[in-house]
Amino acid sequence: MRLSNYYMPTLRDDPQDAETQSHKLLVRGAFIRKSSSGVYSYLPLGMKVINKIESIVRKSMEKYDSIEVTTSVLQSRDIWEKSGRWQNFGPEMFKLIDRHDREYCLGPTAEEQFTTLVKDELNSYKQLPLNLFQIVSKFRDEKRPRFGINRSRDFIMKDAYSFDKDMQGLEKSYQKMWDAYVDVFDQLDLDYKIVEGDSGAMGGNKSHEFMALAETGEGEIFYTENSDYAATDESAKFFLEIDENEELKEIELVETKDAKTIEEVSNFLSVNKEKCAKAVDLLVRGEPVLVIVPGDRELNMAKLIAYLQVPEHEIEMMDDITIKKITEAEPGFTGPKDLKENVRVIIDRSITRYKNLVIGANKTDHHFINANYKRDFDGEIAEDLLTAKEGDLSLDSKEKLKKARGIEVGNIFQLGTKYSESLEAYFLDENGKQKPFSMGSYGIGITRSISAIIEQHYDEYGIIWPTKVAPFHVWITLVNNNNEEQRNLAEKIYQNLLNEGIEVMLDDRKERAGVKFNDRDLVGVPYRITVGKDSKDDIVEYSKRSDMKNKKISSKEAISEIIEAVREDLCK
Amino acid sequence: MRLSNYYMPTLRDDPQDAETQSHKLLVRGAFIRKSSSGVYSYLPLGMKVINKIESIVRKSMEKYDSIEVTTSVLQSRDIWEKSGRWQNFGPEMFKLIDRHDREYCLGPTAEEQFTTLVKDELNSYKQLPLNLFQIVSKFRDEKRPRFGINRSRDFIMKDAYSFDKDMQGLEKSYQKMWDAYVDVFDQLDLDYKIVEGDSGAMGGNKSHEFMALAETGEGEIFYTENSDYAATDESAKFFLEIDENEELKEIELVETKDAKTIEEVSNFLSVNKEKCAKAVDLLVRGEPVLVIVPGDRELNMAKLIAYLQVPEHEIEMMDDITIKKITEAEPGFTGPKDLKENVRVIIDRSITRYKNLVIGANKTDHHFINANYKRDFDGEIAEDLLTAKEGDLSLDSKEKLKKARGIEVGNIFQLGTKYSESLEAYFLDENGKQKPFSMGSYGIGITRSISAIIEQHYDEYGIIWPTKVAPFHVWITLVNNNNEEQRNLAEKIYQNLLNEGIEVMLDDRKERAGVKFNDRDLVGVPYRITVGKDSKDDIVEYSKRSDMKNKKISSKEAISEIIEAVREDLCK
Repeated sequence: MRLSNYYMPTLRDDPQDAETQSHKLLVRGAFIRKSSSGVYSYLPLGMKVINKIESIVRKSMEKYDSIEVTTSVLQSRDIWEKSGRWQNFGPEMFKLIDRHDREYCLGPTAEEQFTTLVKDELNSYKQLPLNLFQIVSKFRDEKRPRFGINRSRDFIMKDAYSFDKDMQGLEKSYQKMWDAYVDVFDQLDLDYKIVEGDSGAMGGNKSHEFMALAETGEGEIFYTENSDYAATDESAKFFLEIDENEELKEIELVETKDAKTIEEVSNFLSVNKEKCAKAVDLLVRGEPVLVIVPGDRELNMAKLIAYLQVPEHEIEMMDDITIKKITEAEPGFTGPKDLKENVRVIIDRSITRYKNLVIGANKTDHHFINANYKRDFDGEIAEDLLTAKEGDLSLDSKEKLKKARGIEVGNIFQLGTKYSESLEAYFLDENGKQKPFSMGSYGIGITRSISAIIEQHYDEYGIIWPTKVAPFHVWITLVNNNNEEQRNLAEKIYQNLLNEGIEVMLDDRKERAGVKFNDRDLVGVPYRITVGKDSKDDIVEYSKRSDMKNKKISSKEAISEIIEAVREDLCK
Repeated sequence: MRLSNYYMPTLRDDPQDAETQSHKLLVRGAFIRKSSSGVYSYLPLGMKVINKIESIVRKSMEKYDSIEVTTSVLQSRDIWEKSGRWQNFGPEMFKLIDRHDREYCLGPTAEEQFTTLVKDELNSYKQLPLNLFQIVSKFRDEKRPRFGINRSRDFIMKDAYSFDKDMQGLEKSYQKMWDAYVDVFDQLDLDYKIVEGDSGAMGGNKSHEFMALAETGEGEIFYTENSDYAATDESAKFFLEIDENEELKEIELVETKDAKTIEEVSNFLSVNKEKCAKAVDLLVRGEPVLVIVPGDRELNMAKLIAYLQVPEHEIEMMDDITIKKITEAEPGFTGPKDLKENVRVIIDRSITRYKNLVIGANKTDHHFINANYKRDFDGEIAEDLLTAKEGDLSLDSKEKLKKARGIEVGNIFQLGTKYSESLEAYFLDENGKQKPFSMGSYGIGITRSISAIIEQHYDEYGIIWPTKVAPFHVWITLVNNNNEEQRNLAEKIYQNLLNEGIEVMLDDRKERAGVKFNDRDLVGVPYRITVGKDSKDDIVEYSKRSDMKNKKISSKEAISEIIEAVREDLCK
């Protein structure tokens, strides 16, 4: 490609709304343009990268026996009603009606769509397992789109769905997708961790997320250095050392004037924070719910959602009026004992292990001390509603947990029979018995992967693309367009490389050399040749984007070095 | 690909709602499935065909200097307001609002989007010409979706937009796209005509449609055998022989009791139908409009829309109450003379050439005879509002027009400066003067092309794919899966062909031979090998889908014949 015929409107300044390097560099490097909040267009360079990532994903999916199909972005309300997600998905779902007043959404995912697609046609165990994938735009009406194409409202995703006859089959299908994803993300040259995910909202069993490590990532993960434990902050488990043998003391109502927060109560009563039970006052589908956790811990909303099986947007903080109604006290003193109304109380398992707790007394300026589960208060037990902290001990190896941030570029879910049952998608097993499919679903964010790659591959001058996803392999800078020697040499190198199947950009614009070099570094193609005043001696400057070290060599040497380097990169 | 691992749910029966062969065969052959009215999913075989057509289109576009980008399906209302099409597009546009009550449409086309994309960044004549394309889903809320993916509500389209500094540049860009389209449709093995199109609604100048000839096509075209004239029924021009020298007679009001239709009036008065002027009574944006055309001609709505520059959905038939109000007569007697109210009268040019016409008298049961333009009635002149008929003479060569039906698979439009002006997209010309771009827009229906190909390539057994777009090149039928000799030979041929880069489907299912042959013929892959009981002698049956003539040859001969044939087909 000759740059004089190309469309590459690079920018000098960062876009105002950009917070991350990937966002800045994608806009400045002429890869993307915002068309409205959280909605992007892909310029020619961006399109090149997308096409390459899609091709890598497509090949890996096919290698692991997934077959490509395409379903429409327009999905009917009725299938989402059957799965119960029409309401549950909440305001993130774009909805619309057609001219005949039929309701649709713009698919944010396609479990319902794929289950419906195979229903009644995939009907024998002999046809199983089956794994279908598609690469299409997905839509989520994010409350706060940000980070460019990292959290956008319209994004390209590869999604796949597996159909098996039982859980053993699903385990195998799941492992295949795991392997496919490792294949993909290794090729994208990403540094990532595979972490245990929360699968509450998807309504299934096991799940994993592929997190590309990045400081600007919105996801937090916990992991151990030595054992291979890794999990999202939403699902991380940890070991809680508690002295369960402490002697029970008598419960006592005490005045705790002016002490409202856990910190204040802990200081006032000289009781460690973890033993000051925190009551989180919620309204779940409008009904009051108290969740009791140790005072030094955050309630983990994802774990709570999975426990309650209620969508996030139906959980809100309890209002003061309701608090006063259930306690007849000012807010800040709720607790699990002696509630005025019939309130659902959910107790984290750890609370049953601590002895002699401080709890709110549902009376203004008062707490109970030495309160103990069962003897003094009761409630339903949830196994784990707590958020891990850096330094917590891992459950298995008792190693200290480390914390990192990451971008979720892929996820794999074991859905089980949730969708096949609700959408009545059955097959006949070996004994002629009707059974629902055991399903899995598997996503890769194609456009999000682009930002993840950049977050891991850039410097002060611009992007440093891995060869496999680079918009071009080689960038030739013709320093002086008016010099015939230079022009001829650049042209010769260009043609030679093209003939070898190398993807080359030739900057033949009538621009100053400085402008050309800046654009070249910004766009970040891996191999570069500068054709300048040594052209008369057939000498060019050769460098890699990764180290930017210039080497003066003959054009022939440059060509053969590049061919070798590109081929090696592509075969990796 | 082994069919035992594939997903190909062929059907024995035609779908109930299918009217065309392409629709029937695409569903039965497991290429598509309906997900809701006018919305389709593409099964694995369909996806293969789409990917091939997209690849052909992509390469041809790039060959003719168009560069790929992608814009979002979600398009903001504001850009459509600026072009005036938010209202004008009418109910075919899917509209939606996001969680912040901002309005969007699902892009039915992207003139506004692309103009906005380059605005302020493509700003010098030095960067021109520029041509950008994308291949994405488009959405039109068709009142009556039909013919499967021929007229669907969600379809894949390649759309391109060119930006030039003037009309001369646009002409060149237009010609390039013309050439690219010829390249594409030739490769798709389509029999098509390039016809002059109506460009009224798009608001531009010249336009052409690429019509794949098909009896089930929804478009009508007129063409001449010898000269190269071809046009849609919406735009076809023709020569009208009229005796303009006839002596003018005196106008007379006559009673025409019980004669209402042109036919009846013509008989009653013994005046040729063409001289009984027809008044078409319309409401345009709610205002009464009479359009006067010769009695033997249909008013051409597309020409009228282009003349009025009003969207179709704002033109309706006049109601009886309005007719009575403007004429004080029963409906059926409207005419251009002596209207009661101030009614807009539009007169087709031909009416000014006919002498001594019959016109409605705006009085129940009465007509005027010997009415003549200017002397007796007046109105604004439209050059051509008439629909051609088979047998009319062409304007240029005076040849008789022939009529055919076709499927519009592509179109090219000269938009001029309509969008660049309304969206304020300017560049600086050689003299530093700000000028709006001269634009063109160019569409190819990717999914519609599939149905067009099938309408031209099928027989009673199924589809007959051209090699370049066939889901596979070769179909090997292993007759008896339990026979080791057959299995080994089939496997050997399969591997040999794969190694040569040939795309092969091996039917290794445990099914009866009859079922296998039916599926093979239905799916319509161009080259076939049957591995049956002659396997012990290394003999197979080789045939082409096009003639289905079986030839018994050695496996080696079959392999080499196929490699040669496929390569030849692909190089065409």
